[in-house]
This record gives sequence, structure tokens and C-alpha cells, in this order.
Amino acid sequence: MRPSGRTASQLRTVEMEPGYAINAEGSCFVKFGNTHVLCTASVEERVPPFLRNTGKGWVTAEYGMLPRSTNSRMGREAARGKQQGRTVEIQRLIGRSLRAVVDMEGFGERQITVDCDVIQADGGTRTASITGAYVALYQAFQKLVDDGKILEVPMKGQVAAVSCGIYEGQPVLDLDYKEDSNAQADANFVLTTDGRIIEIQGTAEEDPFTEEQFAALFSLAKSGVKELGKKQREALGL
Amino acid sequence: MRPSGRTASQLRTVEMEPGYAINAEGSCFVKFGNTHVLCTASVEERVPPFLRNTGKGWVTAEYGMLPRSTNSRMGREAARGKQQGRTVEIQRLIGRSLRAVVDMEGFGERQITVDCDVIQADGGTRTASITGAYVALYQAFQKLVDDGKILEVPMKGQVAAVSCGIYEGQPVLDLDYKEDSNAQADANFVLTTDGRIIEIQGTAEEDPFTEEQFAALFSLAKSGVKELGKKQREALGL
Amino acid sequence: MRPSGRTASQLRTVEMEPGYAINAEGSCFVKFGNTHVLCTASVEERVPPFLRNTGKGWVTAEYGMLPRSTNSRMGREAARGKQQGRTVEIQRLIGRSLRAVVDMEGFGERQITVDCDVIQADGGTRTASITGAYVALYQAFQKLVDDGKILEVPMKGQVAAVSCGIYEGQPVLDLDYKEDSNAQADANFVLTTDGRIIEIQGTAEEDPFTEEQFAALFSLAKSGVKELGKKQREALGL
Amino acid sequence: MRPSGRTASQLRTVEMEPGYAINAEGSCFVKFGNTHVLCTASVEERVPPFLRNTGKGWVTAEYGMLPRSTNSRMGREAARGKQQGRTVEIQRLIGRSLRAVVDMEGFGERQITVDCDVIQADGGTRTASITGAYVALYQAFQKLVDDGKILEVPMKGQVAAVSCGIYEGQPVLDLDYKEDSNAQADANFVLTTDGRIIEIQGTAEEDPFTEEQFAALFSLAKSGVKELGKKQREALGL
Amino acid sequence: MRPSGRTASQLRTVEMEPGYAINAEGSCFVKFGNTHVLCTASVEERVPPFLRNTGKGWVTAEYGMLPRSTNSRMGREAARGKQQGRTVEIQRLIGRSLRAVVDMEGFGERQITVDCDVIQADGGTRTASITGAYVALYQAFQKLVDDGKILEVPMKGQVAAVSCGIYEGQPVLDLDYKEDSNAQADANFVLTTDGRIIEIQGTAEEDPFTEEQFAALFSLAKSGVKELGKKQREALGL
Amino acid sequence: MRPSGRTASQLRTVEMEPGYAINAEGSCFVKFGNTHVLCTASVEERVPPFLRNTGKGWVTAEYGMLPRSTNSRMGREAARGKQQGRTVEIQRLIGRSLRAVVDMEGFGERQITVDCDVIQADGGTRTASITGAYVALYQAFQKLVDDGKILEVPMKGQVAAVSCGIYEGQPVLDLDYKEDSNAQADANFVLTTDGRIIEIQGTAEEDPFTEEQFAALFSLAKSGVKELGKKQREALGL
Repeated sequence: MRPSGRTASQLRTVEMEPGYAINAEGSCFVKFGNTHVLCTASVEERVPPFLRNTGKGWVTAEYGMLPRSTNSRMGREAARGKQQGRTVEIQRLIGRSLRAVVDMEGFGERQITVDCDVIQADGGTRTASITGAYVALYQAFQKLVDDGKILEVPMKGQVAAVSCGIYEGQPVLDLDYKEDSNAQADANFVLTTDGRIIEIQGTAEEDPFTEEQFAALFSLAKSGVKELGKKQREALGL
Repeated sequence: MRPSGRTASQLRTVEMEPGYAINAEGSCFVKFGNTHVLCTASVEERVPPFLRNTGKGWVTAEYGMLPRSTNSRMGREAARGKQQGRTVEIQRLIGRSLRAVVDMEGFGERQITVDCDVIQADGGTRTASITGAYVALYQAFQKLVDDGKILEVPMKGQVAAVSCGIYEGQPVLDLDYKEDSNAQADANFVLTTDGRIIEIQGTAEEDPFTEEQFAALFSLAKSGVKELGKKQREALGL
Repeated sequence: MRPSGRTASQLRTVEMEPGYAINAEGSCFVKFGNTHVLCTASVEERVPPFLRNTGKGWVTAEYGMLPRSTNSRMGREAARGKQQGRTVEIQRLIGRSLRAVVDMEGFGERQITVDCDVIQADGGTRTASITGAYVALYQAFQKLVDDGKILEVPMKGQVAAVSCGIYEGQPVLDLDYKEDSNAQADANFVLTTDGRIIEIQGTAEEDPFTEEQFAALFSLAKSGVKELGKKQREALGL
Repeated sequence: MRPSGRTASQLRTVEMEPGYAINAEGSCFVKFGNTHVLCTASVEERVPPFLRNTGKGWVTAEYGMLPRSTNSRMGREAARGKQQGRTVEIQRLIGRSLRAVVDMEGFGERQITVDCDVIQADGGTRTASITGAYVALYQAFQKLVDDGKILEVPMKGQVAAVSCGIYEGQPVLDLDYKEDSNAQADANFVLTTDGRIIEIQGTAEEDPFTEEQFAALFSLAKSGVKELGKKQREALGL
Repeated sequence: MRPSGRTASQLRTVEMEPGYAINAEGSCFVKFGNTHVLCTASVEERVPPFLRNTGKGWVTAEYGMLPRSTNSRMGREAARGKQQGRTVEIQRLIGRSLRAVVDMEGFGERQITVDCDVIQADGGTRTASITGAYVALYQAFQKLVDDGKILEVPMKGQVAAVSCGIYEGQPVLDLDYKEDSNAQADANFVLTTDGRIIEIQGTAEEDPFTEEQFAALFSLAKSGVKELGKKQREALGL
Repeated sequence: MRPSGRTASQLRTVEMEPGYAINAEGSCFVKFGNTHVLCTASVEERVPPFLRNTGKGWVTAEYGMLPRSTNSRMGREAARGKQQGRTVEIQRLIGRSLRAVVDMEGFGERQITVDCDVIQADGGTRTASITGAYVALYQAFQKLVDDGKILEVPMKGQVAAVSCGIYEGQPVLDLDYKEDSNAQADANFVLTTDGRIIEIQGTAEEDPFTEEQFAALFSLAKSGVKELGKKQREALGL
């Protein structure tokens, strides 16, 4: 029995509100239950030095948590003058996940920065971030199309992400904080919505786990990502 | 004529939603038109070293802006490893403003940190922050009362803040970004809702201004703060 | 009765020694009683990126305190690797105050940095800094004129600053450290010597104060700044 | 055909020299072909604050690369004042991998820091680091046993790591730099030598990859880790 | 012929004003010609952790330059967030030089920090700093004696410092900036006033120099330090 | 009697292995007994801004210690975000020492960075670094010659370094850690192998020392450097 009463393969209530941020070219306020993340996509007419004069664009991501998004207040990273290792890991993951579905030659020498800021946290902030970031990024590309700057949205796939874990011996989908902090194993799956792998990160929390357990987690993740993909398309009106 | 069509003494639409953040002891999502700030108050059972064993508590504040809260994306302070001078100035102002209405001996050796995070910016983020911070802090104190930890809310006054400025030669209340970036002078008034001064910061943008102009701004501010005070009490159900 | 025996409207003994620093284009060693600040103005033949090719110059300021300028030694900011919030606030204030009286189009694409370093502190370091910085800056402009680089000193006003406060219930001018640390309210006035406002920062230390009290402080400040202006002109031989 | 002439399932020449560092409690100089890493384990008689008085110990890891371990010189992290995101990710991975096979209650309130410093890099530095770190850590535990401080080596499993990837369409084991920089997918497997999962990190470099491809990588990894485990035991004389 | 017209063995005009800083326990404003350094000695009733409960005290030094002490403005170290290598080297040298003449067991568990801040620079700032620091430190010790906290000044020697160099082929004493920037070799001698060595730092600027040249520099230094020692005793009234 | 059983004028066993690092243009793994330093020389086709378009090259050095190169683990400088004062001092010394024997106009507008990383420390790491750095640098220059980029190795002298000290009252050569930490005086001599001075740094550890003692140390150093020079030439096959 999961603390939330969900079945093993049940996602939390997922909501996505594209266009939440009036200043950004693209945005999505995404909720996985009580985990709320504001994703914004900002387009700049320049690329990092290593891409100048290559005709290619760049997509990168940054991640942050509001100090009291969590149960007890975390120190503000800006005040400490340093991003935590966890923050750096997550923003690198989001960036790689988005780049895997973008045609980097399809939007000119532009950089798009996707900011994922956690307004409220209840587990799964990185997977919610990736899922919402896709929507924000799509919207920013759509705006470039609408503004006549590019001909079509340069996406070669659709990406979403979900966590799975072994909780009280049973594989379950989309861990909330209570489950996450007691899971025997924990894996984040970044998949295309047609089931291919972009990134997998699986970690044993206490004891190593078996290949069979891993396969069960993978299976849950595929169905979860499929469902998230549907929500993304609905949010984008596709 | 103001860009927004408001009269000279008209506030923007103000909304306050206390309890927005489920994890925090107190919180308020405050909107001054398109300026949106999430204020959370976090209670810790410890004080800074200089207050240990004095029986006094401490109230402090931190301020931040989401990178794309503004019209063009700002670099993330956590990534640059440094808070900007403007950020430091504002959070010190918020902290002083709150401490001026709190009885520091009335809530034990506790520290309350009020975080003001700008979700969307359209001018006046510091005054919206102070106004919302009061509500979040009140709510946190109320929770201490409800939990039986203190006997009453240790507030000896009610504080709100508003900006005024001289726009196209005319004193106006509650500047939005368009007005703010073109004002001849700009002043932030942190007042008690019964009209006393907690902090005044007035700045000539281009040319020095006169004592009479300053008096006109002050007069607008008093009426604005009175109105904000009413909204605060409504939000808190007082 | 003030600790120093001064009357309520009496400045401390003020001295200004222009040209103190042989290496700088302009300089002033300013003393407000036991508060001693060395102000130097350094001219560089370049402007910050945002002003390139605009024909405009820039004036900026930096502020520092020697570690043992104060009663107990403060940690050296260079050693801690970080300027305090107070330092940042003050140097921004000095910069804005100077820019308000300078014609930015009148000295070419040059940057002038005014450094205000507190050699000894006894209250009022920021107001002494602004008052001395004006003299150092004027001298640097005069040197540009003497060197035939510009035709006249590009100053459109004269600025000085003084603090006032409510000490034992009475408004007094030019607080020294003993008064400052016990004042009920404390305000810094940056005014033109003909009485117009450049910047006002008023802060209640414990209890909010009234509009009438604020008016009394303003009145003291105007007379103080007038007197400081006279000293500045004498120092500059104007 | 692999650039090195190896077969798809062939490791590079692996060497491990325990006790390389005369000052450390445990050490191992590990070579995976031209990738050389010096791993040292340092025992301290204290634990981080969150473990004080719990009877538990702690194992942590740090990772670094000599500036010219790589083909073109990298800036020194100490000189830049900041560890790169990649560095932080890797050292967190090493630490988690070791902790998964250690009985944290079996060596008292001690902290062991395993430093993995890359002397020369040719791909696979993080997997070589984990593999060598196990040996260094074991040796440090053995020294605690020999010194009579604990009764037995508190290891509940044996860990090694290897990378696999899809190179020119074919799954191959233990990528060197040439392969790594041209792989379609790249996965790092941290496994127990009896085949259970501690950590898996798989990343698509350009295009997403399939579940079948992932399974092939996993299979290679299991055989590679088994072989590495044998080398570790030989090095330790077990 | 030296640019200043001095003979090869002639010091610049040296002045020392003890007690310059009213807030510090000891101080000395020292001038070597146009090189002016303010030295303050601050006594704290605590020692660094490694000396607690040993009965020993500690003497340390910090060094800084005002941004426009030099001919062209240097960036402020506090603003850059980092002390330069040169700064670190010099303050370590000053600290070692002072500790070499102090009986560390003679003033209890106290720390004395000597700050040497260069107000104006014309070569030889580190040697002027050491020479003035001795006076400031002596004065601080004398104050501890006067306050009845220790019985006598715990100095076991008298230290002063001077630079020498080979300028246009000739060994000369006490280089000013013009000489220093054109010297073939440059050496700083920190000696006791009775001629023993505390620290010697000799550097060839372009070409290596000979043992004979070094001996000539040493000889000049001994006479210079002897003379400086006399000035120190006069300043201290000894 | 020295702890190692060496005679007063005896170096430790010295070994130099040029070409140790396969990725670097020049390298040398140098051992002075148990002090082991890896020196690499990296050539870049650019110079620092102050040398652009001057036809001159630049040689600089960086220094680091592996965290467990020492008897007790030192914190990693990259993790603390700051190089220690000692590190900065040493790398500046290495750079100056190398530049003193290089013809800066003889290798075009190139920068060569020599990294000296201490793998194991037993005293004398800076002198071993300089001695090995010369070999690495020579090898890098030789590679530029072999590649036809310059005509001859632009070295105008040969540099090596050794420490001397007064241990138990007796001057001894090439201090190891045990001696170094108990020496009454300690001096590092950077000399050309024909006996001229590049840099001398002598420091009294407890009591000042005499000119005669200094002369004895110098004499030991000259014979030591002569011997090291021979080893360098053998290592380079000259």
C-alpha cells in the first residue's frame, strides 16, 4: 500500500499550464501532485563561443529550488555563493535530455535557456522539470515559427521523464517524497514517448538490486512516460 | 496619462493569497498587478550567535528573482556565485522593515526567515515583497500561537510599502515597470498603516527634485499604504 | 545634551585637504571630526561596455574601511573574499549621488572611479565620503580642463551629504558614533547645496517616527549641507 | 573494428598497485590501459556532524584530474576556484558506489575519504576510479583490523565499474577516449562482482537508443565487472 | 646617479608617527619618502584553535593597498573577491618577520593582528610595512604592560627591513619605484638591528647575479637596518 | 647525525624520468628521495594579453599537491575554492625561476605552462619542482625545434634548486620533512648550474641566524645545484 493510496503503476495528478510566465518566449507551470515547477524557455540571439559560425544552436538548462519549497528551509544557493552538487547534476541532466530531441541545426545560431525553478517540492522534481521543460521549449520554438524566424519546430522526438523505485519491496511509479526517502532503489528514466532511452540513472539506496527489479522499473517507466507524453500534447494543443 | 490608464493615486490590482506554500509556517503569494512575489516565513528554533541566551528572537529576510521573471533573462545569482548589490540592498530593507513592527522579546529564541522570491516582475518588487512579507510573518506567528508556543502575535504595528515617483512631471502612486524606467524621481515608502515612517528611500533619477515634490510623493504613499493595510487585514481575516 | 557638547544644529569640525594623494587625478582627505576618509578620483580613457560609442562618460564609486578604522577590528573584506552588504549599499549610494550632479556628456568617453577609503571611523562615513568625493571629482575634472582635454568642468550642481537623527528625543545634525548607535531614527540626506534632493534614506531604528520628526531632520540637513558646500568651495578655491 | 584492435568484449590491460602511496592508510594506483588513477584512502577519527554519536562511520570520495592528464591542458580547478559540474557528479558517484558495499556500523565513528586523482586520462576515468577506490578502501579497512581497531573488514560486497557504449553500431566494453568521443550511447555500470546493480547511468549521445541495445551493454558490463573483480582480489591477495 | 639624487647607501627620508590611529592598541604611520603605510596592531583575547590551552599567543599580519595608492589605479581586492598572490606573499612575510622577534609565551593567549595598509606607494612598501609594524606591535605590547595584563614587552629582538638592488650596475639602498622597476636584481632584507638574518629574499630580474653582488647588497642592508632601528627607538621614545 | 643517515652535503637519491606524461609536450617525473613531483609543460599558441603583438612568449607555472601526498590529508584546494598562500607563493617562484633562464624572444608568441603536481611529499617539494620543471620545459622546447617551429632551444642558462638548512646546529643540504620541520633556519636556493643567483629565500624559523651561517648554506647549495644540473643533463641526454 502506497502512502498516497495510489496503485503501483499510477502517476500523481499531473497538470501543465503552458504560457504561465508572460515575459518568457515559452513556459510551463507543471505539477506532479504537490511537486510544482515553473519552467521558462528564454531565447537569445547568440550562441556559446564554441558554436559561433557553425549554423547550430544550443539548448541549455538551469535548475533551482526556492528555499522553502521543501519541508525544512534550505539555504539559498545565491547567498552561499555556490550551487550544490545535486543542483549541478540535475541541470546537466535536463539540458542533455532536451538536446537529445532537438535538431540543433534547425533553429539558427540561437541559445535557448530553460530554467526550471521548483516552487514546491514533494519528490520527483527533476522528472517533473524535464517533462515541463519539453513543453516550455516547444512553445518557444513555436514562437520562433510564428515570428517567421524558422520554418518549423525543430524537434525530432518528444521527451518526458518519470521516477520509479522499489518501495517496501514493490516496484512503484512516480515516487513522492515519502516514498523516495524510504525506497530501496530509485531510478529516473528519461525516455522518448515512443519508448526509447535518452537517459537512465538507477541507484541502489541501501542494498544493490537485481536485473529483474530493474526491468520491472523500466516497464513501469515506459507506461508512465507514455501517459505524460499524452498530457504534454494536450497542453500544447497538438 | 499613465500607460496603464490608472489615475495618479490609484494602486494596481492587489491580491494576497496567504498559505500558498504548504511547507512553510507562513506564506503569502502577493500580486501588485503583474508583479508577483511568493513570500514564505520559516521558523527555526535557534537564533544567531549574538542573540544566544538573551531571550530575544530574530527576523531576517532574503530576496531573489527567478531568472526569467523579467523581460529579458537575468543570469542566475546562484550560478554566478554572488548576489548583486541590488539584491543585498533589498533584502536588508525587507528585514529592517519587518523588525520595526515586531516585538523581538515576544517569540522566544527563534529565528524567522522571510524569503521573498519574485516569480514575475513589473516594477515595485521590493514594496510588494514587504507588503506580502508582513502577511507571511503574521501567519507564522499565528501558527506559533496556535501551537501553544507563544501567547500572542508579537506585532506592535502593521507595515506595508509602496513606491511613488514623478512620471512626466506628475507625482504618481505604485509605479509599474514602464513608469519606473522613465521616472524623474522614485521613492519607496515603508510605513506603518497608521502613517508613521519606518523607512524612506528617495532617489533622483536624473535631476534633483524639490522638497515640495517629495511631500506630494509622501502624501500619495500614505494613502496607498492605508489601502494596502486594509488588504492585508482582509487576507489575514482580521 | 549631545555627548560631544555640540548644539543640535552644529556640525563637527570639518576639514578638507584636496590633492592629498599625489598619484590620483583628484583627491580629498576629508575629516568630519574623528571620521577621516581619503577620497581619490581616477580617470580612465575607457567606459563600461554599455556606454561605448555613445559619447557619454561614467562616474562610479567604491568604498572601503581599513580593518582597524573602527573601535574593534573588522575582518578585511579582501581576505573574506566578499564585500559586505553595507559596503555595497554605500558605494552604490556614492556613485548615484555624484552622477546626479555631473553632465555625463561633458567629459567624453571616460570613466572616473572615486574611491572612498575610511582611514578612521566615528559615524557618518558615508556622508563624509560623498562630501569629499565631490571635491576629488571636481579636481579630476579640473585636471582634464587644465590638460586641454575638455573645455569646462561638467558639473551641473554641487552635492554634499550629512546625517541627522533623533537622539534622546531631539533632532540633531551630523551624528557621531556614540549618537548614531543610540539614535531612535537616522537619516542620510544627499542634497544639492541649493537645497534640492538627490537621495534621502531615513530609517527608524526601533520605533517608527512621524512625518513631523522627519521634517525637522530635513530642515537640519539643509542647513548642514549649505555649510558643507561652503567648505567644499573654499577647499577648491572657488 | 575497434581503434585499439580489441574485441567487443575485451577490457584494456588492467593493472592495480595497492600501497603505492606511502603516506595513506590505503591506496591503489590503477591503470585501465592509458587511463591512470591514483586512489588513496585516508582515515580520520571523526565523522560529519550528522553522524556524531550514532556509532556509524562515513565514506566519501573526491575526484580530480591533473591539468595535463588530458590531451589539451585543462584549467586547474583550484586556480579557477570552482569544481566543474562533471567533477562534482563523478565524486558523488564514487562515494555512493563505495557506501553501497560498506557496513557503515562496522568501523566506528570514523570518516574515510577516498581521493581519486587522474594522473593520465584516456577514457573511463570514473569507472577506473571506482574500481581502484574499492582496493584502496579495502586496504584502509585492513589496516584498521591490523591495528586492532576493528575486528574485520566491514565490507558486505565487492564493487567494480566499467563503461560500455555503442560504437559504430556495435556494443563494446570499456571505451577508450577515441571510442567514447564517437559513441552513439554510453553507459557506466557500477555493479557488485556477483552481478547486482549499484548504479547505472546510461546516456544517449545523439539519438535515443533502444531497450535491446541497453540489454546488450548490460551483458557486456557484467562480464567486465566479473573480470575486474578477479583483478581486485588478486591485487589484495584475497 | 640615482633618479632621486641620493647616494648609493642613502635611505629616503624616514618618518614614523606612533599612535596615529586612535582606535587601535598600537599604530604607526610610517613614511619612506613617498611610500606611506599605516600600521595598526589589534589585540584580541583569543588565539587560533591550534594554540588554545597552550599558554602561547599569536602574531599575524595582513597587508593591503588602497586602490589609488599606485600610479595607475589597481582593482580593489575586496571587489574582485580575491587577494592577489603578491598580497598573500607580503602579509605572510610581515607575519613571519614579527614572530621572529616576539616571545610567544610572553603575552598570554592573545592574538595580535598587525594591519599594514599602503596609503601611497613609491617602492619598498613591504619593507616600510615591516619597519612600521614593529613599532605598532611594540606599542600594543606596551599598552598591555600599562594595563597590567603582562609584566614586560615580550620582544627578544628588534626588527626592521629594507630593500637593496642593483641599479645601472651599482648596488644601491632603499629602492624607490623608478629604481625598483629598472633594477637588475632586487633583494629584501629583514634583519635584526644587530645584524642577524630573519628573512632574505633576493630575485634576479633579468639575468642571474653573482655571489659578490649579493654580498654588496647585504652590506648596504645592514647599515640601512641599523639606521632604521635608531628611528624606531626614537619613535618609541626608547 | 641526520635522520636519514646522509652526510651534511649529501643529496637524497635523485631520479628524473622525462617524457612520463604521454599527453604533454614536455614532462619530467622527478624524485628527491620520497618527494615525487610530476612536472608537465604545455604549449599553447597564444600569449597573455599584455604580450600580444610583441613577438615575445611567456612561461608560467602552477603548483599543486595531491590531498594525500602528505602525512595527514590536506583539504583539496579545488573543493575549498581557493589556493593557499603557500601554493601561490611556490608557483610564482617556479615561474620566475624558469623565466630567468629563458630567452623570451626565442619561441614566438607562445605560452608554456609548467604544472608541478606533488604526488608524494617529504620536504623540498618546491626545489624538486623547479629542478624537474627545467627538464620538462627543455623537452617542450626541444619538441618545438623537432616540429620545425623554432630553430633552437631558447635557453640562456640552466636552473636547478635545492634547500639547505641549519639542523641541530649544523648546515645540511636538501632537507627532508623530518629535518625541515625541526630546522633552525631554512633557505631555498635557485641557482644557475654555473653558480649564479636567480632567487634566494632564507628564513629563520625561531631565532635569527648569522651571516656566516648563511654563507655556509650558500656553499652547500652551490655544490648541490651543480650535482642536480648534471642529473638534468643526463636525463635530457645532453
